[in-house]
Amino acid sequence: MKAAVLYSGGKDSSLMAVFLQRLGYDVDLLTANFGVYSSFKPAKESADKLGFTHRVLKVEEQLLGNAASMILDDGFPNHGINYLHRQVLEVASSEYEVVADGVRRDDRVPKLSTEEIKSFEDRQDVEYINLSGFGHQTINRLAEKLFKLKKESTNPQNNSDYEIEIRHFIGQKDGKKAAESLFPPHIQSRVIGWREDESK
Amino acid sequence: MKAAVLYSGGKDSSLMAVFLQRLGYDVDLLTANFGVYSSFKPAKESADKLGFTHRVLKVEEQLLGNAASMILDDGFPNHGINYLHRQVLEVASSEYEVVADGVRRDDRVPKLSTEEIKSFEDRQDVEYINLSGFGHQTINRLAEKLFKLKKESTNPQNNSDYEIEIRHFIGQKDGKKAAESLFPPHIQSRVIGWREDESK
Repeated sequence: MKAAVLYSGGKDSSLMAVFLQRLGYDVDLLTANFGVYSSFKPAKESADKLGFTHRVLKVEEQLLGNAASMILDDGFPNHGINYLHRQVLEVASSEYEVVADGVRRDDRVPKLSTEEIKSFEDRQDVEYINLSGFGHQTINRLAEKLFKLKKESTNPQNNSDYEIEIRHFIGQKDGKKAAESLFPPHIQSRVIGWREDESK
Repeated sequence: MKAAVLYSGGKDSSLMAVFLQRLGYDVDLLTANFGVYSSFKPAKESADKLGFTHRVLKVEEQLLGNAASMILDDGFPNHGINYLHRQVLEVASSEYEVVADGVRRDDRVPKLSTEEIKSFEDRQDVEYINLSGFGHQTINRLAEKLFKLKKESTNPQNNSDYEIEIRHFIGQKDGKKAAESLFPPHIQSRVIGWREDESK
């Protein structure tokens, strides 16, 4: 059975992909793109290295604009990112019967409540799967075991999270400074391949 | 790495066992027993059919007594079962660094809150994993795909849930009628083996 995993090239969504594959799903990795900046490239690179099918999921720029407005109004990204993730899940569910992401137990954003998940599944006739059965310790340990990881500071060339296109969008409208203060660079672990003994 | 799965022989805990094995864990299936009735036998049978190591986790009868008192006071089993599950997790965590169960997204009992999980992991220096990333539709579909299942009405010979020993305990103290009204029989799906194409 087909399953789509919303994919950033990070540990969490990569683990979810492996997880579903080992349960027998035929997995497509999807990275949303709003047509503003080609931020999907690092995710596609990670997907290729792991041998998964990768697709760019085209989503209306309008939704990115809505998220950017929320973030500028709030002065912090949480609600805007949550909004965007829900929109992307909806788009993915129009093409797939099973849609998953790498949201884990201790994540706060993006995160759907149990009620939102139930509504999403019923409304779209889709099964939604995430990693909320796993805490960060377990995820880190499994990721170290399975993947070659690269720790580095985030920049627009090595990260496929929503924030890259949101930053770009806000930067174009309100200048780079506004964008950078909302999304300061941070250290990320990007998946750059399998550990030798795990590549099958 | 070793992982213990609290195991009943049902779909959920069987799926958790398979997940963890396919992620590379060396899985032991544990069924708690309080020394009152040998209710672990159906679970052991399912574990054997799937080829997993099965162990009976001996737990003090006193804890079963505490749960039975809670259930008789409340007039319904939820709090008592939740209490017992926590106690069993604690016992398992004294022997294993990773402890898992088959609790899924839409389960109500037994269930730990996110705060309880954090406290449990920190206090016992253990990683706890459950199936809360999965809803019942997904679990049912995966279980049908992987396992031979037997649908039947629960009885003391075919079920390894906590309720069997609790019923036995209450039955001895307060008579069979009291025990039966608290735990009416229901339809269960027991795992009785692999589907041919999934047995590895």
